[in-house]
Amino acid sequence: MRWLCFLGMTALFVPALTAQDAEIRAMLMNSEAAWNRGDLVAFVSDYEDSPDTTFIGREVTRGGTAAILARYRRGYPTREAMGTLTFSEIEVRSLAPGLALANGKYSLKRTVEGGGDASGRFTLVLRMTKSGWKIIHDHSS
Amino acid sequence: MRWLCFLGMTALFVPALTAQDAEIRAMLMNSEAAWNRGDLVAFVSDYEDSPDTTFIGREVTRGGTAAILARYRRGYPTREAMGTLTFSEIEVRSLAPGLALANGKYSLKRTVEGGGDASGRFTLVLRMTKSGWKIIHDHSS
Repeated sequence: MRWLCFLGMTALFVPALTAQDAEIRAMLMNSEAAWNRGDLVAFVSDYEDSPDTTFIGREVTRGGTAAILARYRRGYPTREAMGTLTFSEIEVRSLAPGLALANGKYSLKRTVEGGGDASGRFTLVLRMTKSGWKIIHDHSS
Repeated sequence: MRWLCFLGMTALFVPALTAQDAEIRAMLMNSEAAWNRGDLVAFVSDYEDSPDTTFIGREVTRGGTAAILARYRRGYPTREAMGTLTFSEIEVRSLAPGLALANGKYSLKRTVEGGGDASGRFTLVLRMTKSGWKIIHDHSS
């Protein structure tokens, strides 16, 4: 009974985790793990491989995963420059069926030689495709 | 006939300007004009007045137009700090019926006392409401 009561309390206070929210968070956790094993190819596979995909950072990148991969390789040429990535403060918002907005914080733990620690915020617009959720627009700062 | 031929060529080479695209560009032009006459109240009226509205910049602001207005007033306390705003490189993309993604560049022309010139990029997620298009998420950097 105490256990049931606890479950009831949890249901009252914890917002229901929708399938969409859980899927996108899982995608981001996989993405973080890919980065942290130095696998940029797996990391960029979360972007939609389309000429319409956009990535805004210091520069604007347009195009599929090859263009985005090239950009990451320029920005993070060594394992040391990649450092260790952690996503936090993730928020997922449903925009329409199969369309979501996610934002959060990224932190890079790096050696001084790797460029030192860095952090910032990201906004992702994601679309459900035949291959799962894919990022169609990224604004990172 | 030459005129008709010119029209035909134009139709071939200029992508059709959708109503949505035109409406959002008009909104941004009005927004620019509001900023440039120092009218922050009109400027923030383009944001959806909802607790779910988010604005990511150096800090994260959540909430309706009052919260966003307070943020702009903190960031741009004087007419000189506001300077003259120009939006450029605007791109509007349809996400779903009544839902759009806009991005572009902002430039502030300012005196040295006002903080000097500044520029950056923005991503807006917009929703069609009873009062027209409203920004539900802004990421500016």
